[in-house]
Amino acid sequence: MRNPLRICTENYDIHINDFKKSLKDLLEGKKYSSIAVLVDENTERDCLPLFLEMLGMEIPIIKISSGEIHKNINTCQFIWKQMMELGMGRHSLLLNLGGGVIGDMGGFCASTFKRGIDFIQIPTTLLSQVDASVGGKLGIDFMGIKNSIGVFNDPQTVCIDPIFLKTLPEREIRSGFAEIIKHALIKNENQWQEIREIKDLSQVDWHVFIADSVKIKRDIVQEDPFEKGLRKALNFGHTIGHGIESVFLEKPDFLLHGEAIAIGMICESFISNEIAGLSDKELNSISSYLLSIFGHQPLEKADFKAMISIMGNDKKNIGNKINFTVLNGIGKVSINETATKTLIIKSLEYYNGLAL
Amino acid sequence: MRNPLRICTENYDIHINDFKKSLKDLLEGKKYSSIAVLVDENTERDCLPLFLEMLGMEIPIIKISSGEIHKNINTCQFIWKQMMELGMGRHSLLLNLGGGVIGDMGGFCASTFKRGIDFIQIPTTLLSQVDASVGGKLGIDFMGIKNSIGVFNDPQTVCIDPIFLKTLPEREIRSGFAEIIKHALIKNENQWQEIREIKDLSQVDWHVFIADSVKIKRDIVQEDPFEKGLRKALNFGHTIGHGIESVFLEKPDFLLHGEAIAIGMICESFISNEIAGLSDKELNSISSYLLSIFGHQPLEKADFKAMISIMGNDKKNIGNKINFTVLNGIGKVSINETATKTLIIKSLEYYNGLAL
Repeated sequence: MRNPLRICTENYDIHINDFKKSLKDLLEGKKYSSIAVLVDENTERDCLPLFLEMLGMEIPIIKISSGEIHKNINTCQFIWKQMMELGMGRHSLLLNLGGGVIGDMGGFCASTFKRGIDFIQIPTTLLSQVDASVGGKLGIDFMGIKNSIGVFNDPQTVCIDPIFLKTLPEREIRSGFAEIIKHALIKNENQWQEIREIKDLSQVDWHVFIADSVKIKRDIVQEDPFEKGLRKALNFGHTIGHGIESVFLEKPDFLLHGEAIAIGMICESFISNEIAGLSDKELNSISSYLLSIFGHQPLEKADFKAMISIMGNDKKNIGNKINFTVLNGIGKVSINETATKTLIIKSLEYYNGLAL
Repeated sequence: MRNPLRICTENYDIHINDFKKSLKDLLEGKKYSSIAVLVDENTERDCLPLFLEMLGMEIPIIKISSGEIHKNINTCQFIWKQMMELGMGRHSLLLNLGGGVIGDMGGFCASTFKRGIDFIQIPTTLLSQVDASVGGKLGIDFMGIKNSIGVFNDPQTVCIDPIFLKTLPEREIRSGFAEIIKHALIKNENQWQEIREIKDLSQVDWHVFIADSVKIKRDIVQEDPFEKGLRKALNFGHTIGHGIESVFLEKPDFLLHGEAIAIGMICESFISNEIAGLSDKELNSISSYLLSIFGHQPLEKADFKAMISIMGNDKKNIGNKINFTVLNGIGKVSINETATKTLIIKSLEYYNGLAL
């Protein structure tokens, strides 16, 4: 099960499983003047030793503190400064070893250092392996708004090894699994049927699911690299999910991204059932499977208003309509649909009712 | 002499002279959700009233302090914050009204705000009209290194009106004129012959010279947008010129960019004469014309070492050779040539000797 797999995108390849040879070939071909690796304290401890062994050489590290809270312009300045002090220049390479924060911020720093140097993404969480590895979205949070400063840019290559997942808590795996489910729901009913067989996340051989999921995202992004249309399909579950995630940031029992998206997918499936032709049977199948994996997190009625207000601020809205991506059926999406606040509240109440 | 002129590049058009109609058409076609204009205290006073009259509408302004010293990440954060507070989003437009600092930094802020929004450059100095209006180089200074953080990105359009030049001190005009001379020297002997007729800068009708100069740069950049090869032709005069400019930054009688480049072109013409076939007659014609316009600024021998050290740090060097772009004749360049330190010193001494 460790055969190297390669997924091609327009501008770069994604290597899954044993990427040692592909990485070595790329480095030899490019003859970089210098190389550094960006890590946080977790990936330094859990992933770096294994990665350096694969790489077969010692390289300088740039180490930042983990967590979304550090995905900001101050950390960028620290990274740029380190790159300068290491003497990195236009012909240097930055390796980003970590989850979404490392990939987004490291990619942004590389894309803006000396007007852009090469970088390679080595995502180490399930979420970043299936989500951040395609699409070229890089950036940081600014003034409390997620990803509000950034660029679109592609890495030289992406190296995914499911071996890094062994270092993750099960909750992190489950969070990434939500994006795999989403990709199947919007584009591939067969994959959805396979996914539904998964009961115990600790027993999954992830590389096939990662590969299929990455291919779905690759196909969507390829048709719409700058998010002008079709790519909004990927927002399924994210309008409501993002509203829930933001409100829970203020609470002691915060939700991981995928946990919030799982709730968002249930609510938006309810909306899809009401306005877009998703059948009752499909809605029930989605809701019951997601509950079986993610459990149920009651939402407080008092928070509904704040959640909806955040949905209204999403940067993908034009004017004051709240945009949704809905399912016409499993594997079929419509973008640019809108829902009323009343219907959104109904969907949140539907989710709450599922616990009964 | 106020007929609109249009120069097309691969991704956008450059409008020279009366750009009112072109700008209006673009704004009507694009239906931006909001528009703001970036100015400094000089362009707010000297250029904004005229520009708003052309535009025919009132728009919010974002105002920063003028000068290269403010071209940094702190000012970017101020600009991004203002953009957020104005409610700007992906479908907004930023107009950059000013010289190189406004264009470089405003373009960078627009290119990174919400992963990139549209921007239009309205360069108001001769230097930025002929130099910064083509090529997509955007960015800021960081840790004392010029333009070390930035991106390559194109504006929606560039609007050049020589009328703004009337607000500039003659010294600024002369500085921009150095780049016009450079463009002719590297690519167009006929233009060089026309330029040599210019004796009094206050009597020049600039729009034709701007248009010809922009076309030269456009042709070079088009063949090499990311500065991998041919574009280095534009570095003529800049290796030594940049070393001189940096050393003079520490002195009370600092040099404007073009003034330093004029000296750099004389020195690098000397090197071209020694190693690349530029004839004695051509060297003399370049030196004597540049002296007639820029006068002579004696260089201190004690500074030569520092100047050469800065040349060695240029981000375009690979390894420790000092790269030069040299003239094989007027209108003909060779890139990737190298010169020894001895020869560089000889060229600085040649320049000093011209005062005798």
